[in-house]
Amino acid sequence: MSDTPLEQLGLIDHHCHGVVTHDLSRQEFESLLNEASGPSPLGTSLFDSMLGLAVRRWCAPVLGIEPLAGADEYLAQRSALGADEVNRRFLRATSTDWFLVDTGYAPDAVTTPDDLAVLSGGQAHEIVRLESLAERLLAGGTAAPNVPEGVSEALAQTPAVAAKSIAAYRTGLELTPTKPSIDDVGGALGSCRPGTDGRYRIVDPTVSGWLAWTAIESGLPLQFHVGYGDSDVDLRLGDPLLLTGFLRATQEREVPVLLLHNYPFHRQASYLSQVFDHVFMDLGLATHNTGTLSEAVIREALELVPFAKMLYSSDAYGLAELYFLGALLFRRGLAKILDALVAAGEASAADADHISTLIGSQNARRIYRLDLSST
Amino acid sequence: MSDTPLEQLGLIDHHCHGVVTHDLSRQEFESLLNEASGPSPLGTSLFDSMLGLAVRRWCAPVLGIEPLAGADEYLAQRSALGADEVNRRFLRATSTDWFLVDTGYAPDAVTTPDDLAVLSGGQAHEIVRLESLAERLLAGGTAAPNVPEGVSEALAQTPAVAAKSIAAYRTGLELTPTKPSIDDVGGALGSCRPGTDGRYRIVDPTVSGWLAWTAIESGLPLQFHVGYGDSDVDLRLGDPLLLTGFLRATQEREVPVLLLHNYPFHRQASYLSQVFDHVFMDLGLATHNTGTLSEAVIREALELVPFAKMLYSSDAYGLAELYFLGALLFRRGLAKILDALVAAGEASAADADHISTLIGSQNARRIYRLDLSST
Amino acid sequence: MSDTPLEQLGLIDHHCHGVVTHDLSRQEFESLLNEASGPSPLGTSLFDSMLGLAVRRWCAPVLGIEPLAGADEYLAQRSALGADEVNRRFLRATSTDWFLVDTGYAPDAVTTPDDLAVLSGGQAHEIVRLESLAERLLAGGTAAPNVPEGVSEALAQTPAVAAKSIAAYRTGLELTPTKPSIDDVGGALGSCRPGTDGRYRIVDPTVSGWLAWTAIESGLPLQFHVGYGDSDVDLRLGDPLLLTGFLRATQEREVPVLLLHNYPFHRQASYLSQVFDHVFMDLGLATHNTGTLSEAVIREALELVPFAKMLYSSDAYGLAELYFLGALLFRRGLAKILDALVAAGEASAADADHISTLIGSQNARRIYRLDLSST
Repeated sequence: MSDTPLEQLGLIDHHCHGVVTHDLSRQEFESLLNEASGPSPLGTSLFDSMLGLAVRRWCAPVLGIEPLAGADEYLAQRSALGADEVNRRFLRATSTDWFLVDTGYAPDAVTTPDDLAVLSGGQAHEIVRLESLAERLLAGGTAAPNVPEGVSEALAQTPAVAAKSIAAYRTGLELTPTKPSIDDVGGALGSCRPGTDGRYRIVDPTVSGWLAWTAIESGLPLQFHVGYGDSDVDLRLGDPLLLTGFLRATQEREVPVLLLHNYPFHRQASYLSQVFDHVFMDLGLATHNTGTLSEAVIREALELVPFAKMLYSSDAYGLAELYFLGALLFRRGLAKILDALVAAGEASAADADHISTLIGSQNARRIYRLDLSST
Repeated sequence: MSDTPLEQLGLIDHHCHGVVTHDLSRQEFESLLNEASGPSPLGTSLFDSMLGLAVRRWCAPVLGIEPLAGADEYLAQRSALGADEVNRRFLRATSTDWFLVDTGYAPDAVTTPDDLAVLSGGQAHEIVRLESLAERLLAGGTAAPNVPEGVSEALAQTPAVAAKSIAAYRTGLELTPTKPSIDDVGGALGSCRPGTDGRYRIVDPTVSGWLAWTAIESGLPLQFHVGYGDSDVDLRLGDPLLLTGFLRATQEREVPVLLLHNYPFHRQASYLSQVFDHVFMDLGLATHNTGTLSEAVIREALELVPFAKMLYSSDAYGLAELYFLGALLFRRGLAKILDALVAAGEASAADADHISTLIGSQNARRIYRLDLSST
Repeated sequence: MSDTPLEQLGLIDHHCHGVVTHDLSRQEFESLLNEASGPSPLGTSLFDSMLGLAVRRWCAPVLGIEPLAGADEYLAQRSALGADEVNRRFLRATSTDWFLVDTGYAPDAVTTPDDLAVLSGGQAHEIVRLESLAERLLAGGTAAPNVPEGVSEALAQTPAVAAKSIAAYRTGLELTPTKPSIDDVGGALGSCRPGTDGRYRIVDPTVSGWLAWTAIESGLPLQFHVGYGDSDVDLRLGDPLLLTGFLRATQEREVPVLLLHNYPFHRQASYLSQVFDHVFMDLGLATHNTGTLSEAVIREALELVPFAKMLYSSDAYGLAELYFLGALLFRRGLAKILDALVAAGEASAADADHISTLIGSQNARRIYRLDLSST
């Protein structure tokens, strides 16, 4: 990498999860590498992908071995260094100032935001996952009719800097354009039954809609999982255009709504970010999963999205490599696009710096008021 | 720009609107710049976008200032020259022979086709907007059951060279594959009530379907708004594939159907243009809004669309810059693609000229019979 | 073409049809060239397309005339050589080791798999089209309630190496996530009536769902037409994401499911191929139809698809040029992408060879067990 401002910019990763702290077998490593649950008897190693190439090309040198080292050598070196050293190297190499951490997905398996901050040398804030919040209340014995009040109180008191909805993983993004009544939500929650492990999983459009509306009313910036995810998601129900009615109904409130990932619907997300004042987007998860080909995805997003409406996130979970690759591929992809614009006389060098800073840091600072908050 | 034939070709802009003739404040300028209603307190200036860069890079020199001049300098120079001079410069710089002008959207705020012709030094023809035609009849006191006959008579007598449907903005593009009965249309119109300003807004699939069928029967080429638009549109309902049934039902009539804009569904529109004899497409609004990145959008459209089935339009409204950028970015984007094909030996220079002329002018002349018509 | 391994690799074309053996008029040639039914009075020659340019650029030299020869000269030379010589030249120039041939579409007009093998110098296997199998049983007098058993027996005994579903052309890809009962299928088949030509055309979701489930149970790899096709298809119903429920329900069986063509939903197909162990994809029909611009389509597919999950096919039908262009454009497009990765240090030369071999040949060998089968 050359020594350009974008590559030195301290990023804000406005959506990620924790990192796994124990040493990993090859099976465990591959199952965390992409959105497949693991290598298939019908396919071959998940290293055979754009993401696998990126791991070998860019992560290997961070571990002290040659670029494009083979998968076996890579994993051997990873084991030799140990998880703690590996995590520290990759997280520090991201040059991330702030991590905003969704603590709602399998939090027991990964670091807390505080531990992530220590490992990375940056700061971390929590993002509260709405469905998990309601599910924890139910599991903790709160009666269904009292859960809405419990959610509202928790959001009023939370230290989190944002809320997150995973409606896309439950009943889809076509959320109700008016807030459901407390009675309807209580009734819907009353029909929920715990699984054999005592945990609840709310799959109900009334509840998802009510949670999103309540988050908007709390004034917390509201993140939505959109598009790309694992085989649990029905990708059709994660099309951001399904949110159009909800966005139209909430635009007057001036509470930021942030569309995460979006692939392969990122042009649709860019459109929504242009025409709705309160809508923002990122390319999370898609940036590292598409490896060096992510440059084209970033370019497509930039076609319509105002530069003040796009953010950076890694959406990394578990593997330290994914935080590092998210940051590196975002920096490299955006830099290539901006360098080409400057070389063609379509933007000035100052424009390129301004755009990089907006997307990599300033937009998130403004939206989440990070300079005002303390850890 | 180098001195290639494509850059000298007199274009036919087969879909645009009028230009605003008064001087503009920054607020007014930005609110006309893209499909957002204006700069947002949550975002920043709309100059921070690919379109904003294109204005500063390409429009500034037309106003006599340096490429990439800042937004403040640009707007100051624009004011100093005055709207009339600015409009004249940009419109003439488009080198457009004919403008086909949709007069159905906020016509009082902008020039008539005749005024646009005078400003540009070209010629202009009218496109009649179907929904506006019916709404004007209702507002003028025509009884609902008599509106269908009034529409049919107006289409038979219109000097317009095309009709336009904005079904995508009302109830979506899934139009009925058979023509609704006069009784059903009269009934649906009878349920329409005027707004507090006395104006009607027809939001009814039976009426939109009947209008489109009636336009086909009149023999007028029929334009459809498809895809990209402002926050009033539900983009999902503007997917051109929703028109499949209507297109299959009308293909035997050999009346041209023209899909406008199409982004981000332009590959879908190219597919329809390939498999249905009577279907054509353009990239309208998307070309200037995506700035210099429009080259990729044009390339994607060219993958499947027969060269005799693609047209040029600016879909400019209000700002003279948008006519100019529409033409310039179309010329530059197409030229880059064709130059690369010629350089790679994938097409001859004569092929490139032939393709440019088809898309920039000949296809529109043939479809709208422009050489036969008089202003 | 330079002398790289990818260009010498013996391909496996895992989905194509037969070739027409008689001499063709210009009208016949153009009607076979793309998915339009023929040149339109409203458009011009279908040579005016990316595919037409590719024919003139790459096919002309195979017939002994200059690259980019005009359409008239091309067709005259084609006639002078005669269909048999033309077919032999193009098919041999594909360097295809195995052709897997769908014999279910208009088989009387084109070669059998055996004849294709002789012309090409390769080997050929049959793919059995499920809907055609059921329709032939009905047309042959099998009573509707007995058709399911007849289908099951035929699949158990077939020499075919794969089954193919054209549900996308009938009622769409949203197949039932559980297998319909024999009674329901018998009832649905009992409602089918033959056309005036005595042939049946089954348009029923219960039957399509039952056929797909039965193929899975037979253990035969199951191909699905997805996305791009002629004007008979409703492209919206061919979105691969509609298969999500079926794929989730069948993933435990470890029977390969192959998504064909996919354009313009190829990113969606890549996603499904990543997250479902048993799902694979190709770009078939889209590769030759988009001419040299197919490189971008291949690049988009590679963003997410594991390299062990992508295959090559031409989906050629009728015209020998399409087998040749399918193979040539696949080789050239993939080679350009891989060469660029190697030049940028993002992959090694050995990686590039490995990826090429997986996609061009090895994945198909593994899935269809080709090394174990005999012609």
